Order: sequence, then C-alpha cells, then structure tokens
Amino acid sequence: MSAYEQFQSHIAELSDVLNAISILKWDARTMMPKGGAETRGMQLATLTRIAQEHFTGEKTARLLDAAEAEVAGDDSDSYRRRAVEQTRQYYEIIRRIPLDLVSDKAALEPVSEHVWAESRRDNDFKRFAPYLQQQLDLAKRQADAVGYQDHPFDALVFEYEPSVNAAKLKVIFGELKQGLIPLLNRIVAQDSPLPRNLWEHEYPLDKQKAFGLEMAQKIGYDLDRGRLDIAPHPFEISFTRNDVRITTRYNLNYFPQALYGTLHETGHALYEQGVDPSLTRTALTIDFLGKYPVGGTSYGAHESQSRLWENQIGRSRAFWNNHFDRLRSYFPAQLAGADPELMYRAVNRVKPSLIRVEADEVTYNLHIMLRVEIEMGMLDGSMKVADLPEIWNSKMKEYLGVVPPNDSQGVLQDIHWSGGGFGSFPGYTIGNIMSAQFLQAARRDVAGLDSSLDGGDYMPLLNWLQQNIYRHGRAYSASELLQRCTGSDLTVGPYLSYLEQKFTDLYRLS
Amino acid sequence: MSAYEQFQSHIAELSDVLNAISILKWDARTMMPKGGAETRGMQLATLTRIAQEHFTGEKTARLLDAAEAEVAGDDSDSYRRRAVEQTRQYYEIIRRIPLDLVSDKAALEPVSEHVWAESRRDNDFKRFAPYLQQQLDLAKRQADAVGYQDHPFDALVFEYEPSVNAAKLKVIFGELKQGLIPLLNRIVAQDSPLPRNLWEHEYPLDKQKAFGLEMAQKIGYDLDRGRLDIAPHPFEISFTRNDVRITTRYNLNYFPQALYGTLHETGHALYEQGVDPSLTRTALTIDFLGKYPVGGTSYGAHESQSRLWENQIGRSRAFWNNHFDRLRSYFPAQLAGADPELMYRAVNRVKPSLIRVEADEVTYNLHIMLRVEIEMGMLDGSMKVADLPEIWNSKMKEYLGVVPPNDSQGVLQDIHWSGGGFGSFPGYTIGNIMSAQFLQAARRDVAGLDSSLDGGDYMPLLNWLQQNIYRHGRAYSASELLQRCTGSDLTVGPYLSYLEQKFTDLYRLS
Repeated sequence: MSAYEQFQSHIAELSDVLNAISILKWDARTMMPKGGAETRGMQLATLTRIAQEHFTGEKTARLLDAAEAEVAGDDSDSYRRRAVEQTRQYYEIIRRIPLDLVSDKAALEPVSEHVWAESRRDNDFKRFAPYLQQQLDLAKRQADAVGYQDHPFDALVFEYEPSVNAAKLKVIFGELKQGLIPLLNRIVAQDSPLPRNLWEHEYPLDKQKAFGLEMAQKIGYDLDRGRLDIAPHPFEISFTRNDVRITTRYNLNYFPQALYGTLHETGHALYEQGVDPSLTRTALTIDFLGKYPVGGTSYGAHESQSRLWENQIGRSRAFWNNHFDRLRSYFPAQLAGADPELMYRAVNRVKPSLIRVEADEVTYNLHIMLRVEIEMGMLDGSMKVADLPEIWNSKMKEYLGVVPPNDSQGVLQDIHWSGGGFGSFPGYTIGNIMSAQFLQAARRDVAGLDSSLDGGDYMPLLNWLQQNIYRHGRAYSASELLQRCTGSDLTVGPYLSYLEQKFTDLYRLS
Repeated sequence: MSAYEQFQSHIAELSDVLNAISILKWDARTMMPKGGAETRGMQLATLTRIAQEHFTGEKTARLLDAAEAEVAGDDSDSYRRRAVEQTRQYYEIIRRIPLDLVSDKAALEPVSEHVWAESRRDNDFKRFAPYLQQQLDLAKRQADAVGYQDHPFDALVFEYEPSVNAAKLKVIFGELKQGLIPLLNRIVAQDSPLPRNLWEHEYPLDKQKAFGLEMAQKIGYDLDRGRLDIAPHPFEISFTRNDVRITTRYNLNYFPQALYGTLHETGHALYEQGVDPSLTRTALTIDFLGKYPVGGTSYGAHESQSRLWENQIGRSRAFWNNHFDRLRSYFPAQLAGADPELMYRAVNRVKPSLIRVEADEVTYNLHIMLRVEIEMGMLDGSMKVADLPEIWNSKMKEYLGVVPPNDSQGVLQDIHWSGGGFGSFPGYTIGNIMSAQFLQAARRDVAGLDSSLDGGDYMPLLNWLQQNIYRHGRAYSASELLQRCTGSDLTVGPYLSYLEQKFTDLYRLS
C-alpha cells in the first residue's frame, strides 16, 4: 500500500467507528426502548473513546506525515490532497484541546441539559443561570485553547461554519435586518385571516406519511438508501451515502408540520446521498471536530439544502399547483372545496411569534440574529448571564414586535446553550442566504429551470446541485463552494430579493 | 481500582463494543435500507477487529493474571470468580485458533452462503458440494486447533453446548429415538383431518401483532426493555438486559406462525431480561467464542426457554382455555363457531414433513438428530460430502417415513452448514429435553403451579425460572444448572413423558 492508502485505511476505520456511533444514536432516538438509555450511554462513551484514541494517537501523525509527502505534488483541489490537508488541520486543532476540558464538557452536558429542561418546564431562569455560566466558562476555555484573532466567538463558530467569524456575521446580519424588518412591518400591516381554516380537520397519520414520502421521492430521495421514521425532534443522519435516514413528527390537524419536516430533512438527505462514492469512508465525509460522519460541508451549506427544498421548492406556488390534486386524493373530505392557491397561502402565513422552530420564512432569521448577538455578547463579556431574560425580551420587541410572557417561551426555549453549543445558530441563517445564492446560480446555468419546476420536474435542479455541491462532500468549504458556483462569497442580496418578491406578491404589498 | 475492578472495566469495554456490533446487526436485519449492506459489512468488520484486538491483546493477559490472584480466595460459585475463570478459559482457547484460520473462515462465509442460496434455489447440490467441503475442512482445522479427546465434533459442539460431546449425544439421541419413533407411528396411524380449517380466513397483520404482544407481555416480556419487529428469519437479540428485542414474521392466513414465533422469541427474551443486573457488562454476559453479548448460558439452555414458553405453555390446552376469548375479540368473524379445544388441536397437529422449521413437537427432534448424525459422519470421515443427498433421504425415510422430492427440500434446506456452523444443531433438541426437566423441577418446587397455569397466571413459573436460571447469566453451565435445579444431568425421561402424555390424550391413543 502507498503512504496515502495506508493513511486512508486508517481513516476508513475511524469512519466505521463514527458511523457505528451514529447508528447507535439513531436507534436511541427512534427505536430504543426507554430502559436501554443507561447502558446505551456506556456503549456510546466506549465507542467515542475508541474513536478519539484512534484519531489522536501517534499512528495518525506518522501516517499523516507520510501521506503529506506523497500528495504534495497533487493538484491543490484534488480530493486526496484535500483529505490529507483537512485531517492535518483538525488533528492539530483537536490536540490543542486539553483532555480535562473534554471531560469537563462531557460531565456537565447531561446535568446542564437536565436542569435546563426542568427550568424551562418551571419557567425558572435563575435555576438554569449558574449552569449556563458554567457552559459559558467552558466555551471560553475552548476558544482560548483553539485560538482566535478577534473574538472568542470566532473559535466556536469555526466548528460549525469555518468560513465566517463574528465581524463578518455582524455585517451580514446588519444588511439582513435592514431588508427584513421593513418587509415584515409591511406584511403585518397587510395581514388578514385566510378565507378558510384548513387545520380544523383531522389528517390520518398513515396518509400524511405516505404523501410525505411520495413528495420526498419526487424531489429525489432514494429509499433504497434511506428510510423515514418518527422522532420528537426531527433530524437527518447518515451512515455513509448508502444509508441516509430522515425523521419527522406528526400533528393530526396541522399536517404541514410533518410534510415540511419531511421535505426539510429530505433536503439534508439529498446532500448526503449525493456525495461522490469515492469519498465514502474518507476524511472528506467526517466532521472531525463534531466527531460524526457527514458528507456535507459546514452547517450552513447543509442547511442551505434543507431550506432550499423545504421553502423555495416546497412552499412555492408551483409546488402546490403540481401536487395539490395528489394531496387531495389522500384527503378528499378534508380538502373538499380547497384549491392550490389557498394551500399556498396557508403554508406561507407570516406572523411574528415567540418560538423559533415555529417561525415563518420572514421572521425566522430575526430569531437567529437575536441569539447570535447574545452569544457574542456573553462571550466578549458585554452581556451578563443574569441579564439575559431582559436582553432577550427587549430584542424580541425590537426585531419582532412581540414580547414573551415568560422565560420558558423566551430565553429558555432552545436546548442549544444547555449543551454548550455556542456557535451553531448562525448556520440556520447562513443556510437561508446560501440557498438563494445557489438557486440563482442554478437558474443562470440551467436553461428552462423554472419551467421544469413549474411542471413538477425536480431533476434538472437536483442534477445541478449534485454536480456543483453534493458530490464534493467536505472537500471544499462553504465559502469555496459559493465562489465556485456563484462567483461571489456569502451575500444577502439574492435571499432578500427572493423574500421581497415572494411576499410582495403573496400579500399584494404595494 | 482493585485488580478485579480493572479487569472488569476492561471486559466492560469489550462488552460495549460487542453490544454495538449486535445493534448494527439487528438494524441490518430489520431496518436498514438494502443499499446500506456493503458499508455496513465494513463497519461490522472494523468493530469485530477492534473487539478481537481488545480481547486477545496482552492487556487482557496482564489484567487476568492480577484478577486471578485476587479472586483465588472467593467461593468457587461466586460470580467474580466465575467471570475470571471463564475469561481465562476462553482466552486460552481463542489464542489457540490461528489468525489465518479466522480470516479463511471470514472470507469463505459470504461466498459459501451465496452459493448455497443459489444451489437451493436451483436444486443443485453438486454446485454447493465443493463449498461444503471447504467449510468442512475449515471445521476440521478449527477442531484440531481447539483440541479434542475423542471426536472432532466435540471441539465444535463446545462452542454452543460445552456440557455435551459426541459420545453423550449418541446415547441421548438413541434413547430419544426409541421413544419418539413408536409414538410418531401411533399418532400417524390415528391422524384424521380436523372438523374445520381455521386457516382459510385472513387475519389482519396489525391485529396479529397486537395479540402476540399482549401474550408476550402476559408471560412477562417487559416492553420498557424490549420491542417487537418483523424479520424474515425471526430472532431474539440483546444489548444488555436493558434492551432485549424480538422479531417475528407474519402469514395472513396461518396466524400461528407469528404468534408462536413471538412466544418462542419471548422465551429467549425472558431469559435475557432476567439476568441479574450485577452481571451487565461482565464476562458472564459475553459469548467469547461466538463474539456476541448474551445473558443465557449455552444454546441448549437458551432454547429450553424458547421451547418451554412456546410449546409447553403456548401450545397447552390451558393456554387456549385462558386466551381463546381474547383472540376471538380480535378476530370475531374468522373464529365464529370455533372453540378453545379446536384451536388447541389445530396448533398441535402432528405430521411428518420435509422441512425442519415447520415441524411439530413430535417430529422436530428427528430432523435434528438426522443433521447431527450427518455432521458427525462428515467430521470423522465416515460420510462423504458427495453422498449426503442419498444419506439424507434414507434417514428421512427411516425416521419420518417421508422422502424429499428434491435436494432443495432435503439436504439443502438449512443455511447452517453454508456458514460453517457445525455443532449448533444439538442445541435445539437439548433445549427441548431441558425444558421438560426444568418444568418438572418447577412443579416440584412451586406449590399449585399447575393451577396458576390453568388460571393463566404465569408469574409463579416465571419467578421460579428467574430465581433458578435466568438471574445467573452464564455463571453456570447448562449441566450445572440442571444439577442445581433438578438434581440430575441431561436426561430424556421428563421430555418423553411430556410428549407421551400430551399426544396420547390429544390423539386418544390407546
């Protein structure tokens, strides 16, 4: 075996162990009887330790050195060279993180999440505050260990979105706010109830599932390499491109919850199923910092695909023009007298609300910005944990014009901080922005793309995404992908135009 | 940590990895989309290699030495001492097996199983014969490596049933045949069709599942630590006592297939769920030779529990007297006019037939003996692979009075030999024999056991089994368990009496 092949074989074993961990996690969230939780935790801890030792050991260093010498002459864009370079980059970063920080984080997480869940239930922020402070302190230690130039947030967001930092995000968020808040105010002034409430009927769950799966397959989800299950917190997860699973949750009345959950996770799954087979079990399908196997590059790039398929395709007028009849064949009584236009309006209602995960396309990013601004403030010391409820509520008032009646529906609503996940929120908004940039580029490159979409043919779009994004796995960063596909880095213009155009029409704004 | 604790912690990690392997296997057989097969194989190979290295490495030897010294003063029946002794025993055996034999077996298995499946489909024994010969040669190499005194079969059956050997089995099988063949002949002479065919109706699968689960819970299956899924080849599998899963398969007309499949696997599951919590992640819940986690001791002891609950309880007259009304509440139209006695007779029809897995209680063991006799003959050279079809057919004629019309329904019917599983068949019959010995002992120990069972209360029986068998995990061998519970080793008397009594009554034999 060549030096690169030996290196690759070592990484392939790491990939196998990480995939096994993901399978155990999928099972724990979808299938495992509740009694299995404690011993499953031990199994996961052991496998995680095995993966950690496998990667951080001397053998990795030795194989890396030899592989680096071998690929030095390769083209700088080649997958081999990228695989070696990324492994080196993360190998050095991970070795900077002290073992006691890793174990302190592991020890705090379950306790902190448990206290958070109780605090949210009891609407008691003061109880959670000391645990949030501990998570914050650990995050600062992590940032110091990894290193950063300007803002501790930079070291943390790197794990999720290596192409951005605090300074860049401030600019982008500023531009986005300038577009979104006026648009939202115009919509709110114009909003009026729909002529009919479609969600007063019951939509049997087996038919919801069948329709959702039919739509998922129509946009390209390969069920020979996937499956759909139920989970209270829906997710997509992959165990190589050959086994990419999605989950959703069902509401008997409000069927868009399951449908759009399915389309969202299908968007993630299309990315994973579309990775080049040659990248299977390589460094270019591993998130080394997050310690899990994933084919897509960065949270934002991944989210761009879930958002694109869920919102820009699934919530389009064309989607319902094409598929409303099929939906009605599943629910003839419930949808008697309804039409595609009513459905289009019903799933695109804009309304400032308290809860992020229930937000519409226009308000969603305001929820994210608020959180990211607070994270940055906590990390640079300009905001104190004790003041968060007040800060949260005043930002809600400023951005969305609504104020939570209690902290459970305010600062306590998301699990992220209780698990120490500082730096992950920007990915949601970056995904939205990128989705519009990618769709604009696809329209430029693919002749007749809109007539295909108008006719319910998603293959030309899928093929473009596959060729330009999915197949590369994690070989290129989100920023490189944007440059290669669109000629520019992250920019809010296309996304704001998309929203402006869609909602000006939908709400007949002047 | 004490020396024993260090040893135990090392074994706990091995247990975690083996449990992870089992979860991946369960998933592959019940949930995995077909596209995932190839990469799943790689994941399993990597984890299996990790487990192998973990166990056979020098660290195990070092920890074992220290632990042996520490437990030397313990009671010889103590779990600690048993855990150390068994680990030592299997550590030495496994180190005797050369690595090239392990890899030769691993390489042959998928090819051999594939050729077997095609040969069975095409009714072409000659095609499979060279692969069977290779498996036989590997089995002989394995027997030579492990070592034996009298018969190479002894070394192979040791993996599944350490308490028996070829000589013992020949005696037991001789006694069993002497009882079974005359009983079968009397039944066949007396057999006549039932007054009604219950299997001409359709029994919807969701109701079959619900009734099966209800019965499984009634005999004690804890769904907080278990679940029921579908598999083409039903099995029970455990990932510690806290997560013990079963599978069954459904036939729309012949509902006993799913019901008795469920009860059979529930019997296995009760054993696993009943293991003492202190044995979780210890050597006493690991099958070192088979390389999988299991709470029960030996194939036969495990099978004694599946058979006991499936046959001696589930196919009893009392079972249907107690539960027929409940079954009819699920299937009122299909069972209109039927009664418990008809159901009892319908699920106990004795009929010599060609296929082992469809055989009734009386003929089943004759199928097993035939296979074991052929295995012994192949291993000691008294039977040639080329002659197997003829030998098979003449034994079928002798024991069961029927002759397969082709090899697919004869010598090619079982997968076992294609995977090299020589030595596993005796467990089925040993299980049957043991089940009767255990039930006899329970009747002796538990006052009013039969009236509990007549009243549909299975807890007194479950408690006895739990106290005397299940909780000990693999601490005691099947032979020791029999000695402790019944005062004697394996003996066919109770089992023959059970069959004689049940079928003399059922067929009104004189």
